[in-house]
Amino acid sequence: MSSTTAGQVIRCKAAVAWEAEKPLVIEEVEVAPPQAMEVRLTILFTSLCHADVYFWEAKGQTPLFPHIFGHEAGGIVESVGEGVTDLKPGDHVLPVFTRECKECRHCKSEESNMCDLLRINTDRGVMLNDGKSRFSINGQPIYHFFGTSTFSEYTVLHVGSVAKINPAAPLDKVCVLSCGISTSLGATLNVAKPKKGSTVAVFGLAAVGLAAAEGARIAGASRIIGVDLNAKRFDEAKKFGVTEFVNPKDHDKPVHEVLAEMTNGGVDRSIECTGSINAMISAFECVHDGWGVAVLVGVPNKDDAFKTHPMNILNERTIKGTFFGNYKPQSDLPSMVEKYMNKELELEKFITHEVSFSEINKAFELMLGGEGLRCIIRMDA
Amino acid sequence: MSSTTAGQVIRCKAAVAWEAEKPLVIEEVEVAPPQAMEVRLTILFTSLCHADVYFWEAKGQTPLFPHIFGHEAGGIVESVGEGVTDLKPGDHVLPVFTRECKECRHCKSEESNMCDLLRINTDRGVMLNDGKSRFSINGQPIYHFFGTSTFSEYTVLHVGSVAKINPAAPLDKVCVLSCGISTSLGATLNVAKPKKGSTVAVFGLAAVGLAAAEGARIAGASRIIGVDLNAKRFDEAKKFGVTEFVNPKDHDKPVHEVLAEMTNGGVDRSIECTGSINAMISAFECVHDGWGVAVLVGVPNKDDAFKTHPMNILNERTIKGTFFGNYKPQSDLPSMVEKYMNKELELEKFITHEVSFSEINKAFELMLGGEGLRCIIRMDA
Repeated sequence: MSSTTAGQVIRCKAAVAWEAEKPLVIEEVEVAPPQAMEVRLTILFTSLCHADVYFWEAKGQTPLFPHIFGHEAGGIVESVGEGVTDLKPGDHVLPVFTRECKECRHCKSEESNMCDLLRINTDRGVMLNDGKSRFSINGQPIYHFFGTSTFSEYTVLHVGSVAKINPAAPLDKVCVLSCGISTSLGATLNVAKPKKGSTVAVFGLAAVGLAAAEGARIAGASRIIGVDLNAKRFDEAKKFGVTEFVNPKDHDKPVHEVLAEMTNGGVDRSIECTGSINAMISAFECVHDGWGVAVLVGVPNKDDAFKTHPMNILNERTIKGTFFGNYKPQSDLPSMVEKYMNKELELEKFITHEVSFSEINKAFELMLGGEGLRCIIRMDA
Repeated sequence: MSSTTAGQVIRCKAAVAWEAEKPLVIEEVEVAPPQAMEVRLTILFTSLCHADVYFWEAKGQTPLFPHIFGHEAGGIVESVGEGVTDLKPGDHVLPVFTRECKECRHCKSEESNMCDLLRINTDRGVMLNDGKSRFSINGQPIYHFFGTSTFSEYTVLHVGSVAKINPAAPLDKVCVLSCGISTSLGATLNVAKPKKGSTVAVFGLAAVGLAAAEGARIAGASRIIGVDLNAKRFDEAKKFGVTEFVNPKDHDKPVHEVLAEMTNGGVDRSIECTGSINAMISAFECVHDGWGVAVLVGVPNKDDAFKTHPMNILNERTIKGTFFGNYKPQSDLPSMVEKYMNKELELEKFITHEVSFSEINKAFELMLGGEGLRCIIRMDA
């Protein structure tokens, strides 16, 4: 395949968002060849993540349309641009919105994965190398999204956004590691680090929250308390290790007080996976003084303010944020895939729906309706 | 001494605060013998800490008068109550407002020093055993403060508030370890944990902030940036390892932006030692994304609100609070005293003044005037 298309413009199908909140339209687009330090991928499977919907709704940020969304996916390298030595055509890869240049202070820090060079910039929409898009329709550029734009049969990414994985791994399963599942699994395992036997609260029981719960289960937490406004989610949550459920609607008192009463003063760790500012504050205030750690995962709105009495902090509580679960994509994703291959990590239970590429708008409907967890979109169907 | 006074009421001198913000009055008080799990100490040296002044001003909390303040001191055990086995008359000790029952979840946690049983309660003013004060004047009870009340020749404490130390240590020096110096030294060494070569900002360059800087110096920080509104403090601060100075009054832009510019994006660690809510917010916002950690030490006002945009947290910043530098008094203070004895820790440079007990109000004047660091009050003079 690569021998015939490398260096050529490829015409293929992509789902284009022409306007905010309007159904995507499958269009024939032209995908230019990769430039220096870029790679072009064939996307085989992609899935819909809440961040796609958030930017498609364009409520919190500068709207940039037309756009090709999509950032959770699995694919194969079609061709590579100048200077790319770590990847070659045929490699199986996961595109990732967090990147790794391996040279900056963040990449060299053991603690950070927020690469300076390739830091996500949702206002950019173009490639770093020449400030242009690789996508066009009859000469009209279509913006990139998150540096990934996986709602296309072919897409171009900076090499730092591409993690090479074991070619034996089924891409229709491990593709969910490329964003949401890793984000909150890492939030628990890499950042909150609950001890064996501890109590963990998870705010939000959609896919991201359930992956946080899965992390707590893997870490050996003895109580995992799920907090959600949607009581329907509790049954499914049990599969991910959630042992108790709190619906804030069922209580007159604030949810952090409910949790403190259930746990003799507060939970040991909490993970906030909704992006609601009230949930963030509750997630912080519900951790035990002396040792409690709250980790924020959900993305807030532009005008939100995190507000708490400083004594809540002084009393030896910790609050931290994380971005892609503190995983460095190229360094850490291959071993996550191995964990799946060794059956230490279950991914099947996150995948509740599957649609063909032509039905991509159904995936949006499912997510907007709060139905299911991950919907895999098959590009070849 | 103990043979003649044990079990007896002792009449001695104490500095009594009859009203908020009025000079203390040296009175003859009666000090009852220690009850179960209590010890009575002869105080030889005490020093004035900002928390004494804060509660004497009674601006932020329920006023409780008459009161015997004082919580930074060194003394000798005069007699012990029933059940006390770890201490005996003649032991050299530091009274500490943080306590250790050794039985509760906090005492058993490696992370916390916020003992449940003996948690500080500034509204209490009486002993736990019988809910009464051990101090009186002609039958009128005088309230205890912080469970320590060291502005008295004799005082009674719960055994959990007393750390036994090396009797060779000079009490007129190591008494400053009983509060402020340990609080912020521990905030840096135990909580912020700066790496060798890192950049640390310290907000507030009074004694507490300087001890935080001393901790950064001991940890091998290469840049220690002091932030204070009082430029006079910079010269003294150099002795404590402070390498650069920022006076927020000298800049039009917010201080966290000034620090970010000086440090290519933010400091690695910051320690807030003023208690001002604006300084707390700046101390958080000035740490580098990806790895920055801010530690709050200063005690806020009752109605303060810590407020920041949640993205500041999401971007992999951490904020934590600490109480007495996360030291457990009985477990950790003896080794701090040994560090002083081994010359790993300098205490002399914190001691800038000395007064006799009869001049105790001068110590208040010095602190209110922002003069000097620690003023030792000699009880025998």
